[in-house]
Amino acid sequence: MTPEEYVLFALSLAQKANHKDIKGNPFVGAIVVDEKGAVIGTGYHKIWGSKHAEVYAIEEALAHTPDLTKCSLYVTLEPCSHHGKTPPCTDLIVQSGIKKVFVGSLDPNPKVSGFELLKQKGIDIQLIELKEALELNKVFFTHQKKQKPFVAVKIAATIDGKIADHAGTSKWITNEQSRAYLHAHIRNQVDAIVSTAKTVIEDQATLNCRIAGKEAAEINAVIIDRTGSLLQATNNGHPIFYKRSHTQLYIVTAPSAVDKNVALPSHTSIVEIDFNSKGQVNLEMLGKKLLSLEMYNVLVEAGAMFSSFLLEQNWANELHYFMGSKLLLDAGGLHAFFGTDHKNLTDSKNLSVISAQTLGNDIYLHYAIDSL
Amino acid sequence: MTPEEYVLFALSLAQKANHKDIKGNPFVGAIVVDEKGAVIGTGYHKIWGSKHAEVYAIEEALAHTPDLTKCSLYVTLEPCSHHGKTPPCTDLIVQSGIKKVFVGSLDPNPKVSGFELLKQKGIDIQLIELKEALELNKVFFTHQKKQKPFVAVKIAATIDGKIADHAGTSKWITNEQSRAYLHAHIRNQVDAIVSTAKTVIEDQATLNCRIAGKEAAEINAVIIDRTGSLLQATNNGHPIFYKRSHTQLYIVTAPSAVDKNVALPSHTSIVEIDFNSKGQVNLEMLGKKLLSLEMYNVLVEAGAMFSSFLLEQNWANELHYFMGSKLLLDAGGLHAFFGTDHKNLTDSKNLSVISAQTLGNDIYLHYAIDSL
Repeated sequence: MTPEEYVLFALSLAQKANHKDIKGNPFVGAIVVDEKGAVIGTGYHKIWGSKHAEVYAIEEALAHTPDLTKCSLYVTLEPCSHHGKTPPCTDLIVQSGIKKVFVGSLDPNPKVSGFELLKQKGIDIQLIELKEALELNKVFFTHQKKQKPFVAVKIAATIDGKIADHAGTSKWITNEQSRAYLHAHIRNQVDAIVSTAKTVIEDQATLNCRIAGKEAAEINAVIIDRTGSLLQATNNGHPIFYKRSHTQLYIVTAPSAVDKNVALPSHTSIVEIDFNSKGQVNLEMLGKKLLSLEMYNVLVEAGAMFSSFLLEQNWANELHYFMGSKLLLDAGGLHAFFGTDHKNLTDSKNLSVISAQTLGNDIYLHYAIDSL
Repeated sequence: MTPEEYVLFALSLAQKANHKDIKGNPFVGAIVVDEKGAVIGTGYHKIWGSKHAEVYAIEEALAHTPDLTKCSLYVTLEPCSHHGKTPPCTDLIVQSGIKKVFVGSLDPNPKVSGFELLKQKGIDIQLIELKEALELNKVFFTHQKKQKPFVAVKIAATIDGKIADHAGTSKWITNEQSRAYLHAHIRNQVDAIVSTAKTVIEDQATLNCRIAGKEAAEINAVIIDRTGSLLQATNNGHPIFYKRSHTQLYIVTAPSAVDKNVALPSHTSIVEIDFNSKGQVNLEMLGKKLLSLEMYNVLVEAGAMFSSFLLEQNWANELHYFMGSKLLLDAGGLHAFFGTDHKNLTDSKNLSVISAQTLGNDIYLHYAIDSL
């Protein structure tokens, strides 16, 4: 096996973790390989705050043989060099006697400089940067580098790019398979769904996760609602106030928009964020706030105006585009995308296809947005 | 093998013909199978006006054995019962002594009633209607039933459904692979490209077929040009007047819009068709005219207004939708589709996916339009 193949093997271990268990931490896998090429230790980062992948792999290798001086360590992410919840992995690597380390990706966290530190300690350390390793930790890399969650925008439109007809009807633009896919493969993967009060009120949206044969599952909801309109009496009993046990409904208002003494429904919180004179939420503040609330990976399901605002502001990392099989040809339908000013074709954003598939006669396109 | 499998085998023969050789005639394949299940005669319709598939198959079978009374004939389309360019196949079938016939699709031509005629003659004839047989002759069935060519509309748009930015720039919405696909797999399959003078002039379009490594190939062009603007002096030397040897440029004008005594460029003709008060061409007249000019299968590459007009008028059988990987978010870009009035979501046209594929980061979607 080549070093790259060993790193890919470590990556397959890394993927065993559940993103909800590791919270904002990265997926990491590690293996120790002896001089004959045998894997004598394996590990992956399982739970936030617990042992790192390297620790499991080295402990298992040491149980196998006390002398690791001829062994190599393959780890999917640069080993940590600082005291966090656990002691630095670099110390353990040096103590273990391992002389050769292969790393699948660098850690953007400025506190982590394990690569340089191990090199200084005389360890032969090489970076084999794999796109699979970067992809696996796209959420981690985004919040580390950009101080904002990883954001995917979901849009469901007709073939002619409308999200509703002239009368506002959007049920149903896409077929049952598309809607089932959204719940089973997208909604259930995120820490929260972000929407706007306007969309949630118009659509009477619940924003939970409904999978056939299972009880509806809760999802954190973050509703951009400058004036706190969801809290008005007319919206008492709105489906988004469904009974929650372990998630929260965050209503993002302008500072002091809502009287702090007002009694909120259970599992509902106000999050105060600045809005600009155009009524647009301050995304930098929102991003940091969402991270502080442990929402690292969010899905935006909102109207064209808010979705396009996020896309224009380079706040969206990915696009989930569901194209139904209807051709509306309506003079008054709502377009899926909204441009605030003139842009030239040469200034377009370029997207890359992550996957493309048919769901019956619907098309589901999953794009990465290259600018990020 | 089941009867269905024998019909599918006959269908595979039918597909061997080139649509340009058979002109407006159908693709037809036929086989004669003896009582042991052996195929002893095969044939397909090769060239317009020449022998039908049944004739080849029966002649080959008779060369093998003089007695076909225990044989079955499988033919993908209902045998003809009238004197056209060739004598009726029903006569030949009866004379051959074949007692059992399986038919893959009925002929919509009212002159053809071979199915009933053979039944009356005591032949055990069964219809095994296969969607593959209908699909193969979609062009033939369309012009027989609707007195119009089979029409596919091609649209190339950004992810946000724009065919040009606010400045009219459309080069290039799609990537090289998409453009190459259009020429190699779509343009080269049609009898003509239909466009409008407005689009052709704005885009300085040639509308020929360019395939890498080959000389550019001619294609008939039909340009909807009510006032004959392409013939104005300002458009002398327009690329659409390229040197032709075996194709024609048809300029579709309103009656008497162009002086009949004016000298036309070579291989250029005026086709006079009525236009209504909105400036829209009379599609019924246009359809019949195109058939009379042996254009059975046309590709429309025009602007949003004309393409959407054809879609609204149920004149389009298929849609080739190329979605580039650019997200323009331009407030002024041109939408790919155009609605003239309010329509409800429930009144949308429903399209079916024929194929969906990625071409690099572009998506190519080939749809059938269900209403036809």
